[in-house]
Amino acid sequence: MEQIVGKQSIQFQRAAHILSAASVVGKKEGDGPLGKYFDKVGEEDGLFGCTSWEEAESNLQKEAVTLALEKAELEKWQLRMIYAGDLLAQTIASSFGIMGFHTPIYGLYGACSTMGEALSLSAMAVAGGYAPYVAAVTSSHFGSAEKEFRFPLGYGNQRPLSATWTVTGSGACILGTKGGKARIAGITTGKIVDYGFKDSLNMGACMAPAACDTIYQNLMDFNRLPEDYDKIITGDLGEVGQRILFDLMKEKGFDIEKQHMDCGIEIFDQNTQDTHAGGSGCGCAAVTFAAYILPKIEKGEWKRILFVPTGALLSKVSFNEGKSVPGIAQAVIIEHC
Amino acid sequence: MEQIVGKQSIQFQRAAHILSAASVVGKKEGDGPLGKYFDKVGEEDGLFGCTSWEEAESNLQKEAVTLALEKAELEKWQLRMIYAGDLLAQTIASSFGIMGFHTPIYGLYGACSTMGEALSLSAMAVAGGYAPYVAAVTSSHFGSAEKEFRFPLGYGNQRPLSATWTVTGSGACILGTKGGKARIAGITTGKIVDYGFKDSLNMGACMAPAACDTIYQNLMDFNRLPEDYDKIITGDLGEVGQRILFDLMKEKGFDIEKQHMDCGIEIFDQNTQDTHAGGSGCGCAAVTFAAYILPKIEKGEWKRILFVPTGALLSKVSFNEGKSVPGIAQAVIIEHC
Repeated sequence: MEQIVGKQSIQFQRAAHILSAASVVGKKEGDGPLGKYFDKVGEEDGLFGCTSWEEAESNLQKEAVTLALEKAELEKWQLRMIYAGDLLAQTIASSFGIMGFHTPIYGLYGACSTMGEALSLSAMAVAGGYAPYVAAVTSSHFGSAEKEFRFPLGYGNQRPLSATWTVTGSGACILGTKGGKARIAGITTGKIVDYGFKDSLNMGACMAPAACDTIYQNLMDFNRLPEDYDKIITGDLGEVGQRILFDLMKEKGFDIEKQHMDCGIEIFDQNTQDTHAGGSGCGCAAVTFAAYILPKIEKGEWKRILFVPTGALLSKVSFNEGKSVPGIAQAVIIEHC
Repeated sequence: MEQIVGKQSIQFQRAAHILSAASVVGKKEGDGPLGKYFDKVGEEDGLFGCTSWEEAESNLQKEAVTLALEKAELEKWQLRMIYAGDLLAQTIASSFGIMGFHTPIYGLYGACSTMGEALSLSAMAVAGGYAPYVAAVTSSHFGSAEKEFRFPLGYGNQRPLSATWTVTGSGACILGTKGGKARIAGITTGKIVDYGFKDSLNMGACMAPAACDTIYQNLMDFNRLPEDYDKIITGDLGEVGQRILFDLMKEKGFDIEKQHMDCGIEIFDQNTQDTHAGGSGCGCAAVTFAAYILPKIEKGEWKRILFVPTGALLSKVSFNEGKSVPGIAQAVIIEHC
């Protein structure tokens, strides 16, 4: 049990290495500030040659894993397991996206925190000696997510400024025992945190308390200060959630404003892209990680980061039954090597 | 990597022990052949004191984990992680059920195979030295599942004889590094298998090919024959799925009729309970395992079993869009110790 640190964290003795990563996104994401970093950008219609948004989202996962495998120079049969998830009911984007690989799979649901969960469990599998190679993949799609959680797109509802825009995209990482220039040194498993918020159009506020909880616990467990990380990167808090996170962290005695970055804020240009509080969705953290964050670690520009995808735990049913929207955040420590 | 065996399996060097298990079920399950084995049986209304079926299902998970902790003489803070899942969109039964424990959590979705997935990942966590104690829990509820996947109960639709009846219940297991009289010796991770079936009222047929695939691969990976297991126990194939499984296994050269048992067939009395092909749902395999299977292993009546919860991967949306219903099965080897 010498790998266990503090209350909620693991420090790996044989850290899993990230061998490659790939990202496939929609046109809007391609038009955004990170556009040039993505491996593949789709057309305006968001269908990626498919006939439904759900199928399009499955296709994104398939392409992201295929590209990541190519970059790692591996064949699909070499993957011992795939850890996959998405936002749709019964995670159908993953099931239909990954099916064709004929690879053992574990399906995950952690809302928009799922890439943190997938990387954590993948790292545990590799570091535990259970697999030479695994893949972690998540996706989201604006069309399928709005249909799943809010209103049909054709209804043309107004969106408050606190709302985020679900990213159309999928990011995949291949992990292995050696190789690559980044490794997962440790993780902090998130708790579900509920402040009683009930607004599904202000997910940043719902997730910020969970982000604070996981980041604070990570600093405690590893006995670190924010400056021990080059960056502390949340998934999709957006502008509103980021302000709440800063306030909550200050209450706990930590100022993370210098280190903090949020994938949801980076991926769109709020002024020109009409995305309000920022990007969100399982794909947001995944594609930003694959396209923008990981290369900076690989180059050694950032030596150690804390990657904290954040999720809002709700469904149409729980929302309509008047339930709150609890949050969760899964943290992964990634180091240059 | 000395723990990896064959193509899809792991043989644990430091096998996780199952310290305790608990089951909470609805009245119909309590009236069935296994009724006397369950820890707690609810009232006729299926609400367990709550105002909605979803809340009732959350409550089932909460009670199952609480009871399992009591049996293991552990406090909730001693649990390092909970691996939890259910059938509802965005796995809300788990989120709202587990939230109150304030324990780190990984949410899972593997349809009705989720108890196999939860036990597999829990065993990996304990055997990897990542946690002294973890919990695995899944649930399903007849009311919430019919609403989620098929028709509102009030509609009173006819059910074909191939249909299964979703079990109302939750089963939880506590795993640890030592103690107890059963251990998880190995696992075989399932692939998604799609034979193109599209009938959501014949899930047995959709899942049988996946069950065959995982069981066959387990026998290959460990170089075993069916008789090396006292029992090979699937989750919820029901009468129809069982016949298909026998045929498919025979095509591969194995007769498993003597060893095979199906939780879905055991849990209801087909003749008096009007459940047609049998029980199903995430809770079916979980409560049957906790109440009936595990005690037999603990007593040494069964020395080694293969527990193979089976899942049908569909959603309302994928079904309505004309997609097939692929299957998955996650296998866990459990031995008396």
